[in-house]
Amino acid sequence: MGISVHILSSSSNCMSTIFDDFKNYLEKMNRYERASSLFYWDMRTATPKQGMDGMIDAVTFFSSEAFAMATSDELGGYLDALAAPEEFGKLDDTWKFIVKRMKREFDRDRRIPADVYEAYIRAQAESESAWEEAKRKSDYSLFAPHLKKMIDFTKEITGYTDPDKEIYDALLDQYEEGMDSATIDRLFEELKKDLIPLTDKILRAEQPDDSAFQGYFDPDAQRKVQMMLLDYIGFRKSAGTVGETEHPFTMAFSSKDVRVTNHYYENMPLSSVFSAIHEGGHGIFEQNVNPDLDNTVAGSCRYMGIHESQSRFYENILGRNRNFWVPIYGKLGTLLPQFADIPLDDFYWEINHVRASLIRTEADEVTYCFHIILRYEMEKAIFRDNVDVNELPKLWNEKMQEYLHITPANDAEGILQDSHWSGGSFGYFPSYLLGSIYDGMYLDAMEAELGPVDEILADGRIAEITHWLNEKIHRYGSTRTPKEVIAAVCGKEVSAEPLVRYFTKKYEKLYRLK
Amino acid sequence: MGISVHILSSSSNCMSTIFDDFKNYLEKMNRYERASSLFYWDMRTATPKQGMDGMIDAVTFFSSEAFAMATSDELGGYLDALAAPEEFGKLDDTWKFIVKRMKREFDRDRRIPADVYEAYIRAQAESESAWEEAKRKSDYSLFAPHLKKMIDFTKEITGYTDPDKEIYDALLDQYEEGMDSATIDRLFEELKKDLIPLTDKILRAEQPDDSAFQGYFDPDAQRKVQMMLLDYIGFRKSAGTVGETEHPFTMAFSSKDVRVTNHYYENMPLSSVFSAIHEGGHGIFEQNVNPDLDNTVAGSCRYMGIHESQSRFYENILGRNRNFWVPIYGKLGTLLPQFADIPLDDFYWEINHVRASLIRTEADEVTYCFHIILRYEMEKAIFRDNVDVNELPKLWNEKMQEYLHITPANDAEGILQDSHWSGGSFGYFPSYLLGSIYDGMYLDAMEAELGPVDEILADGRIAEITHWLNEKIHRYGSTRTPKEVIAAVCGKEVSAEPLVRYFTKKYEKLYRLK
Repeated sequence: MGISVHILSSSSNCMSTIFDDFKNYLEKMNRYERASSLFYWDMRTATPKQGMDGMIDAVTFFSSEAFAMATSDELGGYLDALAAPEEFGKLDDTWKFIVKRMKREFDRDRRIPADVYEAYIRAQAESESAWEEAKRKSDYSLFAPHLKKMIDFTKEITGYTDPDKEIYDALLDQYEEGMDSATIDRLFEELKKDLIPLTDKILRAEQPDDSAFQGYFDPDAQRKVQMMLLDYIGFRKSAGTVGETEHPFTMAFSSKDVRVTNHYYENMPLSSVFSAIHEGGHGIFEQNVNPDLDNTVAGSCRYMGIHESQSRFYENILGRNRNFWVPIYGKLGTLLPQFADIPLDDFYWEINHVRASLIRTEADEVTYCFHIILRYEMEKAIFRDNVDVNELPKLWNEKMQEYLHITPANDAEGILQDSHWSGGSFGYFPSYLLGSIYDGMYLDAMEAELGPVDEILADGRIAEITHWLNEKIHRYGSTRTPKEVIAAVCGKEVSAEPLVRYFTKKYEKLYRLK
Repeated sequence: MGISVHILSSSSNCMSTIFDDFKNYLEKMNRYERASSLFYWDMRTATPKQGMDGMIDAVTFFSSEAFAMATSDELGGYLDALAAPEEFGKLDDTWKFIVKRMKREFDRDRRIPADVYEAYIRAQAESESAWEEAKRKSDYSLFAPHLKKMIDFTKEITGYTDPDKEIYDALLDQYEEGMDSATIDRLFEELKKDLIPLTDKILRAEQPDDSAFQGYFDPDAQRKVQMMLLDYIGFRKSAGTVGETEHPFTMAFSSKDVRVTNHYYENMPLSSVFSAIHEGGHGIFEQNVNPDLDNTVAGSCRYMGIHESQSRFYENILGRNRNFWVPIYGKLGTLLPQFADIPLDDFYWEINHVRASLIRTEADEVTYCFHIILRYEMEKAIFRDNVDVNELPKLWNEKMQEYLHITPANDAEGILQDSHWSGGSFGYFPSYLLGSIYDGMYLDAMEAELGPVDEILADGRIAEITHWLNEKIHRYGSTRTPKEVIAAVCGKEVSAEPLVRYFTKKYEKLYRLK
């Protein structure tokens, strides 16, 4: 019945029938994708424990239906027809992009057997639940068999989708198109060369007194702070909503419906503050994609390095800049009265307090790099060296010792801390650090055009920065690949040098290293 | 692809193939119903304004797909086959109920043309949005054309589903099976005879001082009070969740996933308190339906009078009893400190403060009856006398004057106050008062078996009451019709006499009328 409506609604369109049918098909497929996404959202934000099985069943069904539509003969027929020169020539640039992109993905996905895909979706939901329990109980053995299953599924599925590629390079490419481990090795080595000695110096220097940040901070007040920050950075409530989840994330149904979540720890007020800004950055990206691209593969940005470059630009380059707070520090103190007694300079130091710590999501921007490098090396160990899942906690702890000279007391604050692997997201982690590396480059380009960010922030003109990012990056959605974004915005090859320079300048001053 | 899984999972079942196929079909249909419900939930609790169109499109699609499955030839084939004596005899009682019930609904729904149904669903979503705006702006003219459309659709669709019934009786029967306006006329007349003079006496008596209930009551604290109350009355968080919406409601995906919502007015703390208990009562009902009935027409209770009898039993018979508060009044004062200074007896009087007021959902339990009688008479005017939609605000105001001697200052606090008609729920309102009438009867039956409710509540043994309701009413879900419930629980015909007796005894004492 849905389909009859589409045919009616497109009957006044004067383009070719095949194109209309294709668009109708996409519209229907999008509804199944929307349903899967909504079940996912609900499972994270609202479903009670006992209701989870019913939701897992439904999300499996609708994801599988969407996948079946994405790999159907019918869709293949449309794509072949539209890729043929006479039809392709009639399409505008956006639809050319969509057809080419969908054709490539169709050919890849088609090679995944439907039963394997469905089993994968179900295993993924089970693995995520098992991970939650394992983390809560700090018992890696509960998660290990699921992790093994996710690794095996990932290998099997990648074998279908990218039969000619080395598996880990294929995974990296899935999250950040065009990226490979040779490039990442180069960038991370560049970074390590200067960052290891800089970090050593910082850790040996005098540290801020963080006693004022201890104690109880009302979660309801933290929620109000989040709302204030989202308003301030330009996340639009009319096209966005906020949820509460165990782990903060962002999702978008379209540019008009973007969801961010947060988690409020009573004893860690800065956690929700920076998660708010981070997810807000993702959200601002999605809200400012050209709405004409909504509900197509050209819309919502699918390049995770580029996406993280936006969340991390807001979180770190802006949010951890002293002057970001100048116009709103009074408001923060009104909402969370403990902050009213802390001078801004002390606050600024504490939000950039560099520590050898165990938890990635709570790390400062400097040591954060090592958390990612560790995970990147772990993933190479898993997919290149085929290290057994039972060996992974030991390997994790060794690497924590190597880079940060500390050892987790248990796996909950070690290998179990992140959800990514439980959902089969292997090759995602490097995106975070790629995002920061891109940010160093954007910062150079932005300051060359707009002047010093320090001044813009102090003046409360943050909207100018958001506008610049909207115009340079956001509105293109997925239509520009990461390499194209970097070339268009920065006019050069990706390099870690600007990020290193940013770190060195900022932290030498903050920690009085010279 | 979903279907292949079902066939696999039922292959070990040794019953007839037709029954397996039928169950698989229901399972798939249930997923579409679940998706529609989830979109509905999300639109109320999370969707941002600009995202609404995308959600309306999706809910229309999935509702229509579910409806198509509920009226398909395939389902008709299963039902005919299973209703045939040789197959029917093999079914257990629950499945006999399900087949008979579905067959009757199938035959009714089949008569609705699919395009009419889809147009109705879309019109309903639009009408609900228009009503929200009309209420916000207190501009009935924005809503009137949508209301007319919903009335016309209701007439048209009821003409298909119940061609042989008087239309308003058909609507009443849809919400409370077996109920008709002759019975309601009798019950409401019984009620009015004693309640009009009683109310007059109360309104002329000395009234409580409500000044301590004015001012600002932190919504975050109100939320915590709700959580405390839900725990106390026995709503299980492991199978339930709480949302925030403009208008409180309850919905259930199954007995394991029940959702209640609330709205927190800064200046009306009692509103969220009694909504919490009311929706909690609905929720406890749904959580205690026999889980074997989940996801079938035998599960989640579809009789709105019976459903409201539970929410209103908790809200009024229990929640507005002084002794309900004895064990938890200290906790209330801790969470909402203003209450710590109010003696329990003053609190008790205020929560039973009888007032001639405009808003149904904020009314005391006595004048509430007139709010329903007014709406019942309005609905008869709409469907029997075909009063024009433009005449309805005037009629509303006349009836408010007749029953409560007051007139709304504007339509937002008059005819626009409730959402029901905007969604096409005509014939629903009487259910609330039927619920209270049933409650009077249950109270007699309960006290005959358990002893005085006053004592049970004072002792903090509310779990005994919940258990009694679980056993007598909840666990049967929809398998007992309203008449069967009343017969089984009370052993007599429905009558308003017990409710009148309850009111008279309670309010003569509270207002010292003798």
